[in-house]
Amino acid sequence: MSESNPTLACQMADKICGFDRQHLTPKAMACARTAIIDTIGVTLAGHAEPCTAIVRRVPGLGSASGPALVFASRQRTSALDATMINGVASHALDYDDFSGTMGGHQSVPLVSLLFALGEERAASGLQILLAYAVGVETEIRLARAVNFHHYDKGWHPTATLGTIGAAASASHLLGLNEARTATALAIAASLAGGIKANFGTMVKPLHVGQSARNGLFAALLAEGGFDANPEAFEHHQGFLNVFNGPGTYDATKMLENWGAPLEIEQPSIALKQFPCCGSTHPAISAMLDLVRAENLRPGDVAGIEVLAHGRRLRHTNNPDPQTALEAKFSHQYVIARTLLDRAVRLKDFENDAHFDPAIRNLLPRITARPHPDMPDDSAQQWGAEVIVTLNGGRRVSRRVDDLIGRGGENAMTRDELWEKFSDCAERTLPRGQIAPLFDRLSALETEADIRETVKLLEGLPN
Amino acid sequence: MSESNPTLACQMADKICGFDRQHLTPKAMACARTAIIDTIGVTLAGHAEPCTAIVRRVPGLGSASGPALVFASRQRTSALDATMINGVASHALDYDDFSGTMGGHQSVPLVSLLFALGEERAASGLQILLAYAVGVETEIRLARAVNFHHYDKGWHPTATLGTIGAAASASHLLGLNEARTATALAIAASLAGGIKANFGTMVKPLHVGQSARNGLFAALLAEGGFDANPEAFEHHQGFLNVFNGPGTYDATKMLENWGAPLEIEQPSIALKQFPCCGSTHPAISAMLDLVRAENLRPGDVAGIEVLAHGRRLRHTNNPDPQTALEAKFSHQYVIARTLLDRAVRLKDFENDAHFDPAIRNLLPRITARPHPDMPDDSAQQWGAEVIVTLNGGRRVSRRVDDLIGRGGENAMTRDELWEKFSDCAERTLPRGQIAPLFDRLSALETEADIRETVKLLEGLPN
Repeated sequence: MSESNPTLACQMADKICGFDRQHLTPKAMACARTAIIDTIGVTLAGHAEPCTAIVRRVPGLGSASGPALVFASRQRTSALDATMINGVASHALDYDDFSGTMGGHQSVPLVSLLFALGEERAASGLQILLAYAVGVETEIRLARAVNFHHYDKGWHPTATLGTIGAAASASHLLGLNEARTATALAIAASLAGGIKANFGTMVKPLHVGQSARNGLFAALLAEGGFDANPEAFEHHQGFLNVFNGPGTYDATKMLENWGAPLEIEQPSIALKQFPCCGSTHPAISAMLDLVRAENLRPGDVAGIEVLAHGRRLRHTNNPDPQTALEAKFSHQYVIARTLLDRAVRLKDFENDAHFDPAIRNLLPRITARPHPDMPDDSAQQWGAEVIVTLNGGRRVSRRVDDLIGRGGENAMTRDELWEKFSDCAERTLPRGQIAPLFDRLSALETEADIRETVKLLEGLPN
Repeated sequence: MSESNPTLACQMADKICGFDRQHLTPKAMACARTAIIDTIGVTLAGHAEPCTAIVRRVPGLGSASGPALVFASRQRTSALDATMINGVASHALDYDDFSGTMGGHQSVPLVSLLFALGEERAASGLQILLAYAVGVETEIRLARAVNFHHYDKGWHPTATLGTIGAAASASHLLGLNEARTATALAIAASLAGGIKANFGTMVKPLHVGQSARNGLFAALLAEGGFDANPEAFEHHQGFLNVFNGPGTYDATKMLENWGAPLEIEQPSIALKQFPCCGSTHPAISAMLDLVRAENLRPGDVAGIEVLAHGRRLRHTNNPDPQTALEAKFSHQYVIARTLLDRAVRLKDFENDAHFDPAIRNLLPRITARPHPDMPDDSAQQWGAEVIVTLNGGRRVSRRVDDLIGRGGENAMTRDELWEKFSDCAERTLPRGQIAPLFDRLSALETEADIRETVKLLEGLPN
């Protein structure tokens, strides 16, 4: 490699190493902080899931020496093992944020490793935020180069691009120089994998733990003096040709307009506000607004019509859900729940919550049909309207035109974020720690030593 | 999946679970035992390499609790971590066996994990041999389905197919049932990776540690109750379509004639007898035979002509090697060494061995040229002849027509295997353990508890 013609890994490493406080606009800082809070929340919730429990029982895993916390426990282990376990937990519920451009989940491959490594190296909150932002940038710029061929052929971008983003984040937090950062990226290209055939199984969250751990492993090896081919991306048998294939990518997009603006600020990034099928979120959002504005009570309501985008309705028009999983995909159920509780929470999809008498009383009054104004081929694919007929005959309604998730110009308010965070954290964390944890994370950039925050992620002693 | 139309993973699992003692012919047993001895030897040698040392220094790696030995040390850890470390060591020198059909190294993804897991579960030697044979079968049958498109596009089959073979071996040793074995294979399909762009760097041996560990991880997760998609191979976004691509594989070859005969008996499997470029092996072999038969001494020899296959000679015609690496690629040097020592050993490519005065005295007498009978387009690409002119004018010669490595009908003798094994083991193991270890491994099928053998793999206390 000549200096006049650096490899792609070296060019990425140059961008990664040069990324510092001045590149993080106030908006970008807010987006990063919100994403981290949201990811920590869903990780705590995911620690109650069976897939996380099975990973924790694998012989030896999590017993390595080290200071990194397995969230919601008192177990401390190596950054590698904590990253694996917390990484699996972070995606166990598929309740974490995602990026339309990436075709995957940008935060989960990064946050578990940043907290584990941050704890091991006593990082500051600002270091974590910067390393997070640069990891997302790496993942999504790479996605711009390889998507959607990459996605369509069956790679899980959360896993493949996540591994490389994780290596970027870890390299930044470790303060590796450009040569070692390029090496970490090149190693990560050899550790990436994960196929979509395993969607719908426990292997999907496993992909996240694995890619986060592998990205960290790549950076630790580079730190230790390992070598790799800096041409690992553009080589004829490198990442781009092997994973995508000749003619199916545009490598220039990896570096074009890098960081201007940062990917974490883009409107294509979306947070999931509710723990159910994303196709029901626009209607829930409209209903929540209406219930609050009109101070609606279940006894006031004669009927509710849900007019959803047709493409969103086909798998979510279920007036009589029989299982918790069916309830997640029932517009009627989630709208009834919104009216009843003014919230949609994790516990609403556990046990027999969908058989609550108060819910069963409401379901017959709720119908769903495709919205006549929202054709399948419309540019805005995520719209819904709810029309409530009151007992006296008065009709009130709210409409949402496009809401694939929350983010960008439509960020969750602090109250909405707290609502989701506390609902998630309550599943595994001692209740008294939840608000102090949320407060500390809300000022993450002022934290001198992340270990103070991580103490609040500890569970009760066994 | 209907019972009449089981998935590929289930069909493979059926073969793997049904594999037992009766399927291992005496020849197959001998091949498996030799391959394991050879792999253990090169692993011991690889423990002295820098890439192994760097992996061992990664924070936390190898500190997990467990009984599995890091070879040539007193360190014991989890089977996962020991597999990673010994796996990297096993391929650190690229001195391990390989398969022409696989386009890769079939033993290294399996042996480190079988010893680590075998130690954890107190397996017998026979269990190890059976699990080894079934792992090789899985790797190479899969290779028949996907090669050489898979290889040519840039996947490292040792890593990709090795991960799945490792899952098969681990499942067999764990005694998983068919459903869980199929799950392990399906998980492994999501953990596979490794690109050839990183050949020539430390990442190549890393691929081996990673694939061995990942295969073991997949089996341990399946044992613990993890789920995965049993259609992970034939799914439209499954292993075959994602790694290879539609139309570039023949899935029927995965199961056709499975085990009849076993892949470990095939002539396309080759052991490396000497620690230098494979292109020089035919000439070394001919020279060794000649030196012994004629009882040649350096002082008797007026000149040596090496007539090598032209394709093998282009990168190995070097009468004056200046570095240890150049010496590995010098026909003249290795022939001089064969005459001088009647052996070619690891130490001959360390430090300044290529500057030995006795060697420098011989080099001017040795010439190399393409063999006139061995055209580039011949079917047999690995031939050589050596012609020695004695001081009195008498000429003696030996010729080898095709020797890509040792195996099949041309297996190494016990003495030859010992020669290589002891040379390798001496690098890291206390000398007094080497012969007893070799003896125990030579009767591996009679070992009731592998832990007795593993004790002889311990190094000196730190």
